[in-house]
Amino acid sequence: MYQVDLNSDLGESFGRYTLGCDDQIIPLITSANVACGYHAADPVVMETTISRAKAAGIQVGAHPGFPDLMGFGRRNMAVSNEEARAYTLYQLGALDAFCRVKGMKLQHVKPHGAMYNMAAKDYELSRAICQAVKEYDPELIILGLSGSETVRAAKDLGLRVAEEVFADRAYEEDGSLVNRRKEGAMITDEELAISRVIRMVKEHKVTSITGKDIAIQADSICVHGDGAKSLAFVDRIRKAFQAEGIKICPLKELV
Amino acid sequence: MYQVDLNSDLGESFGRYTLGCDDQIIPLITSANVACGYHAADPVVMETTISRAKAAGIQVGAHPGFPDLMGFGRRNMAVSNEEARAYTLYQLGALDAFCRVKGMKLQHVKPHGAMYNMAAKDYELSRAICQAVKEYDPELIILGLSGSETVRAAKDLGLRVAEEVFADRAYEEDGSLVNRRKEGAMITDEELAISRVIRMVKEHKVTSITGKDIAIQADSICVHGDGAKSLAFVDRIRKAFQAEGIKICPLKELV
Amino acid sequence: MYQVDLNSDLGESFGRYTLGCDDQIIPLITSANVACGYHAADPVVMETTISRAKAAGIQVGAHPGFPDLMGFGRRNMAVSNEEARAYTLYQLGALDAFCRVKGMKLQHVKPHGAMYNMAAKDYELSRAICQAVKEYDPELIILGLSGSETVRAAKDLGLRVAEEVFADRAYEEDGSLVNRRKEGAMITDEELAISRVIRMVKEHKVTSITGKDIAIQADSICVHGDGAKSLAFVDRIRKAFQAEGIKICPLKELV
Amino acid sequence: MYQVDLNSDLGESFGRYTLGCDDQIIPLITSANVACGYHAADPVVMETTISRAKAAGIQVGAHPGFPDLMGFGRRNMAVSNEEARAYTLYQLGALDAFCRVKGMKLQHVKPHGAMYNMAAKDYELSRAICQAVKEYDPELIILGLSGSETVRAAKDLGLRVAEEVFADRAYEEDGSLVNRRKEGAMITDEELAISRVIRMVKEHKVTSITGKDIAIQADSICVHGDGAKSLAFVDRIRKAFQAEGIKICPLKELV
Repeated sequence: MYQVDLNSDLGESFGRYTLGCDDQIIPLITSANVACGYHAADPVVMETTISRAKAAGIQVGAHPGFPDLMGFGRRNMAVSNEEARAYTLYQLGALDAFCRVKGMKLQHVKPHGAMYNMAAKDYELSRAICQAVKEYDPELIILGLSGSETVRAAKDLGLRVAEEVFADRAYEEDGSLVNRRKEGAMITDEELAISRVIRMVKEHKVTSITGKDIAIQADSICVHGDGAKSLAFVDRIRKAFQAEGIKICPLKELV
Repeated sequence: MYQVDLNSDLGESFGRYTLGCDDQIIPLITSANVACGYHAADPVVMETTISRAKAAGIQVGAHPGFPDLMGFGRRNMAVSNEEARAYTLYQLGALDAFCRVKGMKLQHVKPHGAMYNMAAKDYELSRAICQAVKEYDPELIILGLSGSETVRAAKDLGLRVAEEVFADRAYEEDGSLVNRRKEGAMITDEELAISRVIRMVKEHKVTSITGKDIAIQADSICVHGDGAKSLAFVDRIRKAFQAEGIKICPLKELV
Repeated sequence: MYQVDLNSDLGESFGRYTLGCDDQIIPLITSANVACGYHAADPVVMETTISRAKAAGIQVGAHPGFPDLMGFGRRNMAVSNEEARAYTLYQLGALDAFCRVKGMKLQHVKPHGAMYNMAAKDYELSRAICQAVKEYDPELIILGLSGSETVRAAKDLGLRVAEEVFADRAYEEDGSLVNRRKEGAMITDEELAISRVIRMVKEHKVTSITGKDIAIQADSICVHGDGAKSLAFVDRIRKAFQAEGIKICPLKELV
Repeated sequence: MYQVDLNSDLGESFGRYTLGCDDQIIPLITSANVACGYHAADPVVMETTISRAKAAGIQVGAHPGFPDLMGFGRRNMAVSNEEARAYTLYQLGALDAFCRVKGMKLQHVKPHGAMYNMAAKDYELSRAICQAVKEYDPELIILGLSGSETVRAAKDLGLRVAEEVFADRAYEEDGSLVNRRKEGAMITDEELAISRVIRMVKEHKVTSITGKDIAIQADSICVHGDGAKSLAFVDRIRKAFQAEGIKICPLKELV
C-alpha cells in the first residue's frame, strides 16, 4: 500500500496582517507546519492556529525560522550553530505551550525558508537543529528536504525523519532543488506535476532537469494554501492519489 | 521559624548587550526570574542563564513581559486580556524549552515591569495571565505584588501564590507601592530598609508613608544585581536575616 | 467656495504582508498618510508608496506611529514626551529620505492610531510631537483630530494645522469621538454619513450623539481603502461633494 | 604634509542597554559613525549622540546596518540590492532628521558590520548603497574598506570616497582583511600596530600576512571606544601621529 503525507505552512498571519487561507487548506492536508513568531505569527495567531488544527483533527508541527520578520525568514543569515540551536528550542517551546493548553501533541519540526534551505546543504547546521529537537523531545519527527543533509543529520542522531518532496519544483541530478532563478525550475504543467509526484511516491523516482532518472524518497508533499489556484491544485492532487490508491495520512503513521 | 525567598531578575542581556551581574547575584538569591525574549533576553542568553541557575542550584521562574524591547517592558501598553494570555503562554513555553533540555523544572512565574504593575491593579488582566499559567502547569507558583489583584486572581484560580515585597520602596496605606515620582517613594536608608523587611517577614507589618501600620505578607523579597552597591545591600540583608533567625529558602519550600 | 481634503492611510504593507488597496484608493484622495516603519511599512514599501503617490500627483505626509508592529500601533503606550519627540523625528526623516530621492516634498504629518488618539487628549504629548515637526520643517502641516489638543498645540507653536473629521464616526458633545465600544459609535448609514460630512464642511456643524448640534472644523476627511465597500463609499462621497459644489483639494491649498 | 582621520562607531546603546564609552572616545576622534536604529540605537539614543558630537565639534556620519538587532548587524544576510538601497535611505534619513534639528550636517556614510563586509566584496551591493547615498546627497563621503569594491563603486558614481584601514588587523596580499578566524589575523602588538599605521599613512604601504609589501590608501583609521584598553591605544596612536608629523583631521578636509 502506498501512503503519503500532505503538509502545508500555516498560521503565518501577524498582528493586523493576514496571510494564507488557513481555513480552506486545513481540510485538505494531514500535517500543518505552524509558524512560531520569528519569521511570522504572533502568540494570538499561534493559539488560534493550534485551535483550528485541533478542531480539524490534523497533526501539527513547529515551523521555526530566522528572526527576520521583514524578510519572512527567507533570507539566508549567517547564524552560528549555537544560535540555530537556541532559536529552534525557543520557537519549539513557544509553540508547544499552545499545544499543551489545547491538549495537542507536536508531531514534527520543519525548519522554515532560509533555515530549511541552508540546513539542507549544511550538515553541522542540521545537526545543531536536530540536536535541539532531540533534547526537547526525541519522539518528534524531523521533516526535511528529501535526500538532504537535514535528513542525514536527523538519522545520525536516531531521530525519526520524513523526507519532503515538491510537486512544483524541478530537481538536479544530485537530488537538490533547481534554483528558482534557473530556467525550468518550476513545474508549471499541473498534469505533469501530479504524474511526477505519483511516480515519486510509488517508484521512488523522479526525472531530473537533465533528463536522468534519480532516486527520491517521498514521505510528504509540500502544498500551498495561499490562493484559489493553489487550493484547486491540492484538490487535484488528492483526487489523483485516490485514483492511484495512494493513501493520504499524517507523518506519524508513516515513519 | 521564619522563612523568606530572595528573588532577582536575571538573564536580561540581549545580543551584543550585557545587563546585570548575573554571576554575582546568583549565589545570593534563592529564586531567579528569567527574561523570556520579549522585554529582554534572546534564546542564547536564555540557554546560558538556565545553565548558570542550574549550576548554582537556585530555582528559576519565567519573567514574561510586554513585546517592547525598546522600552524594556517598562511602559504600560493597552494589550487585551487575550493578548496578555497569549504573550504569557508564548514566553512561558519558550523559557521552559531551555529548562527541559537542561533538566530543570520551572518553579514560578513573575510578570515583568509594566505587565507586573498593570496586573497588580487589574483583576481581569491578572486573571488572564494566571489562567494561562494554570492551563500550562497548575503546579507553577505566581509571584505577585503583596496584596495585589494578581495575588487575588491567582488564589481565586486555585494557584499557589507567593507575595512579594520591596525593601527599598515605600507603601501607601492601601498596601500599594508609592509612585516613584512621589517624594519619599524610595527607602534610601539601608538600615531602615533592612529593619522594615525584617518586620514584614516576622510581624507581617510595615509602616506606610502616612505613618500608619498596615498588614503585609512577605514571602519573597525582590533584590537587584545591577551593580556593586546592590550586591553589597543583598549581602547585608542576608546577614541581617541570619542574625534574626530568618531562613532564606526558595518559593517552592514556602508556599 | 467650499473646499475639503480627502486623506487616507497608505503604504501599510510589510515584507511579505500586503495591506490595503493602495492602487485603488490613490486616485480618489488628495493627501496620503504614509506609514514610516514603526507601526507598519518597511523601507522597500515606503519607496514604492512614495513613487506611486508621485505618479498619481497626490500629496504625501508622514504617518508616524508607536514602535508596536504586533499591535499595528493601535495600543496605547506610555511613552515619554521625549520618546514621542524622538520617534516622530526618526520616522519623519526616514520617510523624507524617500521623498527627497523621488523629488517629492512632504506636505503634512499625521500621527497614527494610538499616538493620534493619545495626543488628541494630551496637550503636552501633542506639543512634543509638534515641536519635533516644527524643528524639522516649520512648513509642514499638522493633521489632527478636529478640536483636539493636537490642533491646539500646533496652533500654539505657530504651525499650519488641518482639522480632520470622520464620516463614519459619532461625536460626543465635547467634539471628541464616541468610543468605538459604545453603542452608536459608528455611523453605518452611508446616506446619513455623507449628509453629516457635507454639513460639517458647509456649516461647520455636526449633531452629537446626544442630539445637540456642535461646532466642528472639517479641513480633511479620513477615508479608507481597505476593501471594495470602502472604495465605493469614497466614490459616493466624491460624487456628493461634486453635486454640492465642494471642491476636493490637498491640504496645502486649504490651510 | 601627512593627514589622516580617526573614526569610531558611536551611539550603539539601545533602550535600557548601554554600549561603548562614547563620552570618552569623542574627544579622541575626528569622525563618528552613528548607528541608525537597525543594528543598534533607538531614536532617543540617536538624538543624544548627535548632541554630544555637536558639543565636541566632531563630524558625524550615518552608520546604517542590517535589520538584525539580535545579531548587532554582524551576521551576513542575503538582502537584495533593492533592499540594501532602501535600508540605506531609511537609516540615512532617520539620522539626518536629528542632525537637521541640531544644526549639524552629515559628513559621511559608513555601512556597519556585515553590510560593510559584504559590500566590500560585492560591487553591485556597494553600487546600490552608494547610489542611494548619491541620490540623497551627492556631497556625502563614502567611508569604505581601503581598496574594496565599495571604494570602486563610489568612485564610479562620482562620489567622494575615504579609504579606511585598521590598525589591529592583518592584510592579505590582495589588500583584503585576513579572516578573524585565521591565525595572525589580529595585530596584538601595539607597537607594531602603530608603526604599521604610520607606514600606511606616510608610504601607502603595509606588509601583508605573507610578508609581501602591498599598496594601501589610508584616509581614515577605525578605532574603538569600548573599554579602557581601547581608549589608551587611541591615545597612543594620537601621540605617535603627533611625533611623526601626521595631522589628525576629519574626512571632509581630506577628500
